[in-house]
Formats: sequence, C-alpha cells, structure tokens
Amino acid sequence: MSRSVRGEFEIITQIKERCQASPVVQLGIGDDCAILQLPPGELLLSTTDMLIESVHFRRDWTGLLSLGRKSAAVNLSDLAAMGATPRALFGPRYTGRSDCGRYRSLLRVSGGLPRQRAVLAGGDTSSSQAGLSICVTALGSAPATEVVRRSGAKPGDGLYVTGALGDSSLALQWLGEGRALPPELLNRHLEPTARVKAGRALARSGIATAMIDVSDGLLADLGHILKASLVGACIQVDRLPLSSALRATGDEDSRLFDRALTGGEDYELLFTATPESEGKIARIASENSLPITRIGTISMAAEEFVLEYNGNMYPLPLHRGYKHFSDGT
Amino acid sequence: MSRSVRGEFEIITQIKERCQASPVVQLGIGDDCAILQLPPGELLLSTTDMLIESVHFRRDWTGLLSLGRKSAAVNLSDLAAMGATPRALFGPRYTGRSDCGRYRSLLRVSGGLPRQRAVLAGGDTSSSQAGLSICVTALGSAPATEVVRRSGAKPGDGLYVTGALGDSSLALQWLGEGRALPPELLNRHLEPTARVKAGRALARSGIATAMIDVSDGLLADLGHILKASLVGACIQVDRLPLSSALRATGDEDSRLFDRALTGGEDYELLFTATPESEGKIARIASENSLPITRIGTISMAAEEFVLEYNGNMYPLPLHRGYKHFSDGT
Repeated sequence: MSRSVRGEFEIITQIKERCQASPVVQLGIGDDCAILQLPPGELLLSTTDMLIESVHFRRDWTGLLSLGRKSAAVNLSDLAAMGATPRALFGPRYTGRSDCGRYRSLLRVSGGLPRQRAVLAGGDTSSSQAGLSICVTALGSAPATEVVRRSGAKPGDGLYVTGALGDSSLALQWLGEGRALPPELLNRHLEPTARVKAGRALARSGIATAMIDVSDGLLADLGHILKASLVGACIQVDRLPLSSALRATGDEDSRLFDRALTGGEDYELLFTATPESEGKIARIASENSLPITRIGTISMAAEEFVLEYNGNMYPLPLHRGYKHFSDGT
Repeated sequence: MSRSVRGEFEIITQIKERCQASPVVQLGIGDDCAILQLPPGELLLSTTDMLIESVHFRRDWTGLLSLGRKSAAVNLSDLAAMGATPRALFGPRYTGRSDCGRYRSLLRVSGGLPRQRAVLAGGDTSSSQAGLSICVTALGSAPATEVVRRSGAKPGDGLYVTGALGDSSLALQWLGEGRALPPELLNRHLEPTARVKAGRALARSGIATAMIDVSDGLLADLGHILKASLVGACIQVDRLPLSSALRATGDEDSRLFDRALTGGEDYELLFTATPESEGKIARIASENSLPITRIGTISMAAEEFVLEYNGNMYPLPLHRGYKHFSDGT
C-alpha cells in the first residue's frame, strides 16, 4: 500500500473546490456521506454504472475527458429513461495507474455536470495497477405521478425512439478497423448525449406510457419493455431513424437496419404512447430540437417481436443485442 | 466483448429474486433506476466505496462472502458515522473473471443486509480480465436535526471511541507474515462490523456533536473532525481501548498505542460530546453491548493534536494514517 505527500485528502480538497452548492445537495464532498434534500413529495431515483478498461473502453481510442463525460451520460440516460430530474452524480471515480494529472482531467468533467442540474457530490478514489475503472452513481428525483416505468405499455400504443440508431455501433466498428471517423460520428460513441430534457418532458406531460434507454440495442431494450408490460410489438424496420453518417456508408439496407436494431450504446430513448399523443410528441421533438420517430406499434402477443419492411416480414437479426459478463463455465 | 447464454439479464433476474420489498424501496432491480420513497422530511445520505483487488484486499486472504460483507460494512459505517438509518445498498457489484458462481457467492451477502434494514436495490455487473473490484453505494436517511457532521466539535467536549482500536491493522500484519490468526481477530479485518445502531442512537439522542468512522486510522480521522470544527484535541494515549488480542501480542506499550493511533480499517465510531452526556453515553454503550471509551478532550488550538501518556507528553507517530492513491510523479 502506497503513501504519498499528495494523497487522497488533497485530491478530495481539489474536488470539493469544484463542487457547486445546489438547493438539493446540502453537502457534497467533505463528510462521511453527501447530504441531499429532495423536493417534498418527490421520489428518489438511483442508478449506477461502471466503465471498465478493456471491457467498456480502450484507452487508445478515448481521452479521459470523453471517458468522464460518457460515464456521466450513461447514468444520466438511465435517469432520463424514467423521467427524473438529475440531482447528484457520485464520481467520476476511478482506479487507475497512480497519476493525479489524469484524475484532474476527469475532474474537469464535473464542470460540465451542473448544466444538467446534477452536482458532483462525492465519490471514491483509489489506485490500482490494473486498468482504469470508473464507477458513477446518479441520483435524481421526480413526482410520483411522473415516474415512467417499463411496465406501462398497452396494445395499440405507438412505439417511438429519439434521435438516430446505430451510430455508436458503426463508430466502434470503424475504431476497431483503424478507419478515420468524422468527429460527429466519433462523438456518438465516445461522448453520447443523455436525453435528459426530452425524458423529463415525456414524463411530465404523461405522454410516455413506458420508457427505457437504448443501451444494449433496440431489440434487447424493447424486450425489457415487452416483458415488463406483457405485450408484443411490431416494428416497421423501414421507419428506423438512420443518421446521414450511417447512410453514407453505402452499406446495403439490411446491414443498416440490422445495425439499428441491435447496435448498443446509442443512449436514445425508446418509449410507448397512446395514439392521441402524436401531436404532443411532435411538439416535444420540436422544443428539444430532437427527432422523435414512430417506429412501430405495441401488440397483444406477449413478448413477441414482429419486424416488417414495406409491408413484408423482415427476419430477426441473429444477435439481438450485446451481452457482457459471460459465463466462464 | 463476450456473449453468453447465461448473460447479464439472467443474473439480474437472480438478484431480483433475492431483493426484498421495503416501505422505502418501491422498486429495486428491474428498471432503469431503483425507486425509493424516503420518510417525509428526512434528508437523504449517500456514500460509496470501492474495494479493489491488490489495493484493498487479496483474494488469497479473503473469501467472497467476507468480501461482500466487508464491502457492505464499509459503506454502512459511513452512514452510521452521520447517524443515518440505512435504506438501500447498491451492489455488491464487481468486475471479475467471468464466473457466475463467484457472483452468486457475493449475492448471498445480500441476504444479510435487510437485518440492517438496508435492501439490495440495484447494481451494475461487468466482467474484466483484471482483478476483482466491488463498488457499493449505500443510501440512508435521517431527520435533518439528527444528522451528525464532522464540524460540530467544541472546546471542552469529550472525545470518545466505540469498541477497540488497532485489531484490523494487527490482523493485516499477521496475514502478511503468514501467521495463524484467531478467528475473532481475523474477522476484525475481513468482516468488520459497522456500528449502525450505536451511530443512530448517538445521533437521535443529540449526544454526538461531531462524528466520523475510523477507517484511515484514529489520528487521520480525528484530523478531519479538528479541521472541520476548527478545534484541537488532547488524547490520553493510556486510555485508548485495546482488545485482549492486541494486548496478548506482548508488544511493548508504545507499539500497541502507535497501532491504535494509526491503524486503519477499524470502522469504529469516533465522536465528541459535551461533558453532561457522560451518563447517556454509558447507557447507549450498555444498550448496544458495545464499549464506548472517553479517550480525550477537545481543545481550542485549531487542528492541533496533543498526545499525553500518564500525564507526560507522548510523541506523535511518524505515520499518522494510511494514504492510498499515491502520486506517480
């Protein structure tokens, strides 16, 4: 166990200086716990994700600033998917080669958090000879009537998705092939944007009947909604929103659509809404300068996917989404 | 990135089955976030710690069950130090060699949590070729008037500590030397007990004016109270509570006391209280079957330690506490 002049305590002092007070966060770093006072009557929503070197990222593909932003976005996206207002982020913390400079880079990330109304409010720092690992916990809150779960989808509801699908997967593939990427496409993988405002708007207005963020791939994440809601879904594959970057690859349609159906880490919102909500959804899309596309309809058949392409059946992709944590046996 | 039949989703299902409902935890695992409803008017307290292989533990010295318990205790101890009631634990999560069996061992730990009125309410699972790392977040709550910070110590307050000091440090040394350890001593290092009930009692009764848990060593953690409260302290070294295991080593007094002053990971509570609280403290000690010892007095001299031994000055130990996260420069 190592000792140093510039130890953990000094680093915590540095973090403290960067922490901002907020009406919700009464005490950030500097005691045994952070102290938060949620708005009266609001529920607490909590989520947590780890980003681990060699599993979730490669240091030769990403800078620390991007990594910090992504670790925040991944957690904020979970809050967005339930319609919560972010209240505090714990982290970024990491275990890395002992190097304060790198840590300071990560700290800069915290400067970007209050924009999302979340405040860096604590974290654990530790060093290790093994790779870098970042563990972030995000806390948010929402009035009880505005929390959107996965279980509220009803047959006849429309199925919607924000933004475009498949970009992150394409960027990851190109990084692996050593190809140059346009910055916009690269950022879709390295610095995804959590759809916090849109998620809040869809929840506050009561439009979203079920919602999830697309982290493991559209089909995998839709599967969670279908399972929780005991419904099925028909997806109009030709309606899937593809970015111009994805279209510009010149890949044949089936490859593009398979990527949109299964590519992970897009961090877009996938939600269901009654047919009457069509107009309100268009207004939220416009107010947030974020495309929202109807890609299908919820059906009665429990947990069953049907994919259609211009009125014909479309085959289910072989792999429906990324699974990590493999079984060693 | 690996795919497997028994993937993350199945493991989450297993965890879900082990999660218990509680009036506070409305939704544990199974959606994008956990949902908690705190008792009206209570503040939210949040803390988070990582245990990393080769930094905080060695797999050849500890079993997974102990590791899970310790990862919970380390976080619950932070809640205890502010007087909070534990409400939810996120984790144990880990990044380890891909092995579901090991994960299931860690899950068994969750069975022990509700005893402390905390409920396993979420977590992130991930695999890595690097060592095991466990990241736990604990949420608790307490009425605003009962939260004990580090900043409330006043000159003239007595300085108290629960339990005994130095056992964990002795156990760690003996493990390093390959010596056989009595189980009681071994558990003081591998499965420390968070003083949750005592912390709540000291906070609820308004006795503790400042409180912290002893994780980095008595002097290091007392330093945090002195800094936050702008006070000094005089410690009666001969009053430091030593376990019979520590005394049985036959080490000379100065080695025993230096260990009690600087040894880390005891997870006892260190607190200050006005002189009038003496009787109430004895009652809390008795009710919790936990020794509470007055070891000194708070003084005016800001951030200054004075150590006395039978009325004489006692030299400050060279190393005042464990610092990890060394500076690579």
